[in-house]
Amino acid sequence: MTSIKIPPEHPRAESLRIREELVEHYRKGVVATAGLIAHGRGEAFDYTLGEKTTKPALNAIEAAAATLLIAEKPVISVNGNTAALVAEEMVRLSQIVKAKIEVNLFYRSLERELAIKELLEKAGAHEVLGIGEHASAKIPELGSERRRVDPRGILAADVVLVPLEDGDRTEALVKMGKKVIAIDLNPLSRTSQKATISIVDNVVRATPKLVEIARELKQDSKKCHRILLDFDNKKNLAESITLIKERLSKLAEKGEYLTLEDEKHGF
Amino acid sequence: MTSIKIPPEHPRAESLRIREELVEHYRKGVVATAGLIAHGRGEAFDYTLGEKTTKPALNAIEAAAATLLIAEKPVISVNGNTAALVAEEMVRLSQIVKAKIEVNLFYRSLERELAIKELLEKAGAHEVLGIGEHASAKIPELGSERRRVDPRGILAADVVLVPLEDGDRTEALVKMGKKVIAIDLNPLSRTSQKATISIVDNVVRATPKLVEIARELKQDSKKCHRILLDFDNKKNLAESITLIKERLSKLAEKGEYLTLEDEKHGF
Repeated sequence: MTSIKIPPEHPRAESLRIREELVEHYRKGVVATAGLIAHGRGEAFDYTLGEKTTKPALNAIEAAAATLLIAEKPVISVNGNTAALVAEEMVRLSQIVKAKIEVNLFYRSLERELAIKELLEKAGAHEVLGIGEHASAKIPELGSERRRVDPRGILAADVVLVPLEDGDRTEALVKMGKKVIAIDLNPLSRTSQKATISIVDNVVRATPKLVEIARELKQDSKKCHRILLDFDNKKNLAESITLIKERLSKLAEKGEYLTLEDEKHGF
Repeated sequence: MTSIKIPPEHPRAESLRIREELVEHYRKGVVATAGLIAHGRGEAFDYTLGEKTTKPALNAIEAAAATLLIAEKPVISVNGNTAALVAEEMVRLSQIVKAKIEVNLFYRSLERELAIKELLEKAGAHEVLGIGEHASAKIPELGSERRRVDPRGILAADVVLVPLEDGDRTEALVKMGKKVIAIDLNPLSRTSQKATISIVDNVVRATPKLVEIARELKQDSKKCHRILLDFDNKKNLAESITLIKERLSKLAEKGEYLTLEDEKHGF
């Protein structure tokens, strides 16, 4: 795959570049096989959203930045795909909002945990929780390895940022009384439906935006509270769905879909 | 991934079973890395379609069966994902409509071609075209390895069935004057837009249906011609897009999306 050169003028060059990055990290053991399939699902939803940060996504990013800044014990949960795509931005965010970083995998293996830890440390992280035996606490109601969390991190957190999370775990964290901020391109997923704040956007676009807005809001806690008073997650999610519908309508009416053309480099 | 047991009552058990099958064939060298990502894209579109064969998909399947039966030199083009998921059904179809089978990969490697050939032969194929040096002809206007086809197969064909094809190649085959039948879950893809007949359905559901209908139509060439007179691909495609829109509307109105919940086993 990496042997294919992507011309910069290609209409979907950015999407293909992100994919290359993911595959590279797959080969390095950071990304799981299921992570590649999940990325494909994300690509499809991103495509229906127009591959841009929409207005409702921006609203959710603002609310997320405010929530992280107000939090007492915020934690950023990082999995393979997140580390592969936005390790540096996540570390920067953790520094701005003073959040801990915890590795939390659906398919746990010490090898992959360590590969992700190394990547995060290279990106500037001083402390990475959730590795090996440190993930000694358990989320109630979840089976197998997925329930394991770090008692210093997610277990004690009041706010957890879960980019690219699964629905079960999102729901379990909310039931534990935590505020959960999700980044998920599918507005209909259980993750998006169950999260306290659902950012329906590509993690590659949403994370730098989150960093930028958190930096702006850092000195203005009044504005943070105002943002949260105005924010309605259910309403905001419905707007994302409406945007997808409108976009599909427009395309169906045009009867000419080539501006939205599927990536050329299929398989 | 294969270590996770899928309970049969899981709302998306079938989707997860298909995924397991794909990953298993990925490990055997049949499926490419890009094929896993592409599968994820398909999952997302299938989910917006309700994971069932819709009325427009059925119309397209009927038109496809009729076209294959009327064809003089039909060829079924098989790639890694198709072989992994529906090798037996494709072989059965080739026998009913008297089509040749050709392996045609986006990322060509002799090793993968041979793995796919073996899979097709195990599924009952007597002859598999397009392997190694046999793919000695070239499709005009296409770069690299993707243009290579077998002179006894796709090059000479009047009708080509291309499940899970890329847009470039679909377009090039149409320009060569061939009728192209695509199976693609994305109604907005260039493949769907450029094909002569676009089946917007999961290859796992569409292929057995195609076998069944081809078998029924085999003795009735008058009906085949009638079906083709009535079939309008552009109109039919627009109906698929409308169905997705309607489904999204219904879900957005309900404000409760759990019947459509995203698969639990994320990553």
